[in-house]
Amino acid sequence: MKIVILGSGNVAFHLAKALHQNQIPVAQVFGRNEEALAQISGLFNIPFSTENIGDADLYLIAVNDDSISDISTKITKKDCIVAHTSGSLPIDVLTGSYRKASFYPLQTFSKSKSLNYSEIPFFVECENADDQKTLENLAHKISEKVMSSDFEKRKYIHLTAVFSCNFVNHLFARAREISDAQNIPFDYFLPLIEETTSKIRELEPKAAQTGPAVRNDTRILEIHESLITNPEQLQIYRTMNASIKKMYEL
Amino acid sequence: MKIVILGSGNVAFHLAKALHQNQIPVAQVFGRNEEALAQISGLFNIPFSTENIGDADLYLIAVNDDSISDISTKITKKDCIVAHTSGSLPIDVLTGSYRKASFYPLQTFSKSKSLNYSEIPFFVECENADDQKTLENLAHKISEKVMSSDFEKRKYIHLTAVFSCNFVNHLFARAREISDAQNIPFDYFLPLIEETTSKIRELEPKAAQTGPAVRNDTRILEIHESLITNPEQLQIYRTMNASIKKMYEL
Repeated sequence: MKIVILGSGNVAFHLAKALHQNQIPVAQVFGRNEEALAQISGLFNIPFSTENIGDADLYLIAVNDDSISDISTKITKKDCIVAHTSGSLPIDVLTGSYRKASFYPLQTFSKSKSLNYSEIPFFVECENADDQKTLENLAHKISEKVMSSDFEKRKYIHLTAVFSCNFVNHLFARAREISDAQNIPFDYFLPLIEETTSKIRELEPKAAQTGPAVRNDTRILEIHESLITNPEQLQIYRTMNASIKKMYEL
Repeated sequence: MKIVILGSGNVAFHLAKALHQNQIPVAQVFGRNEEALAQISGLFNIPFSTENIGDADLYLIAVNDDSISDISTKITKKDCIVAHTSGSLPIDVLTGSYRKASFYPLQTFSKSKSLNYSEIPFFVECENADDQKTLENLAHKISEKVMSSDFEKRKYIHLTAVFSCNFVNHLFARAREISDAQNIPFDYFLPLIEETTSKIRELEPKAAQTGPAVRNDTRILEIHESLITNPEQLQIYRTMNASIKKMYEL
C-alpha cells in the first residue's frame, strides 16, 4: 500500500515517525512548509514535495481542522482512501470522489517529545468494511489499541479528553496562580500530581477520590473559600465541590 | 534525638519507612491498632506499644485530623517537641506543655505504594528557631525539598493541592462516566493523561493549555454542550471553559 502524508506539523511528524519505526514505507510527505517537510524527509527517509501530491492508495491528512476540507480538494485520484486525523470532524468534510475515512490518534503531539506509539489509541472510521480492515491493520502495526469509531463516538472521545486533559491542565494553571502568589514553588506539587495520575492505573478514579469535599469537611471548605480572592478560582472551587458531593451523595 | 511516632496509618507507616531508610532510629511507634503497629515494627525494626508512650525528644503525631488534639493530651512530657503532620491544622490544636510544631509531608500515602521520599516536600513550623532548625535538618535527611511554613501558608499549600490533585482526580471520575457510557475503555486515555502531566515538568501549565476553549472554537464547544446530559458535567464544562477564556482574555 502506497501512503502519502499531507501536512508537516506535529501530527504529520509523529505519523511519519511511527510508520518509519514500524518499517512501513511512506511514498511522500506533501505540504507548504518546506523547512518542516525537509526535516521529516531527512529524519524518516521520505521524499517530500510542496508542489505535486504523489500517487497513493492511502492519503493521511494531518493538518489543522480548518484546513482539512481545503487540502482534501487537491486529491483528484478516485480509487484511494483519504483519511483525516481529526477527532472532531466527520469524514464528509473531505471533499472528493475517493473513499473517505478518519484515522485519529488520541494523543497530544509535540515534535520535541518522544512517544511510545504502541500505547497510543487509534480510532478508525471508513466507508466500507474492506477499507476499515485495511486501516485497522495499519493502525495495529503501530499500536496495540485500535478501535472502530464513527463521528458520534469521536465526539465523546474528544469530550472525555477535554475533561481528563484540557481541563486538568487548566486546574494546574489555576493551582499555580495560588502557589505562585504565596511564593510556594509549584514544582513542590509535582510528586503529588504524579501520584494522583499514577493511582488511576490501579484504582477507578471514583474510588481514589480524596480531599475535603468527599469527606464533607465543612470547616476546611469554608477556610478555603475565605482564602480565594479570584472569582474564576472561586467558581471552580464551588463547582467541583458541588459535583464531588453529588457524585458521593453527600 | 529520640523520636516516637504516634499512629499506625498510612502517614505513620511512610514516616517510619522514610526514617528507617535514612538510618534515623525511631524509639517507638505508639497507637491503638496492634496489627498495624506490629507490621511497622517488623518491617522497620521499631519497638511498638499500645499502652505507654515512650520517652522522646520529638513526637511525630501521624493520625487523622480529628484525633490529633485528643492524642496530643496523652504526651505529658514538657521538654520535647510535639509535631503533627497535618496540612490543615494550626499547631495550637496540640494540647500540652511541650513545644509545638508541624511536620507536614505533601503527598498522598498508601501503604502498598512505594514512594521516592527525597522528592516529597516537607513543610515545617516550630515555636522557636532552634526547634525549627532541628526539624528542618531532620526533614533534609529524608527529602531535598524542605520549606518553613506557618499555618497561613499551609492553608494555601493545601488549597493548591486540592486544585491540582483532588479536583484533577474528580475530573478523571467525570471523564470516565462519559467514556464508560459510550463503551470507550478509559485506559485508552491514560497515555494522553500522562503526557498532560509530564508536559508541565517542562512548560508552565498556562503555556501548555490546549483544547477548544483556548482556541475559542465555538463550534466544538456547542457540540460538546449538546452531548452532555449530566447536570454536574455540564456545570463543570461551562465553569472550566469560562475560566479558560478569562485567563487567556478571549
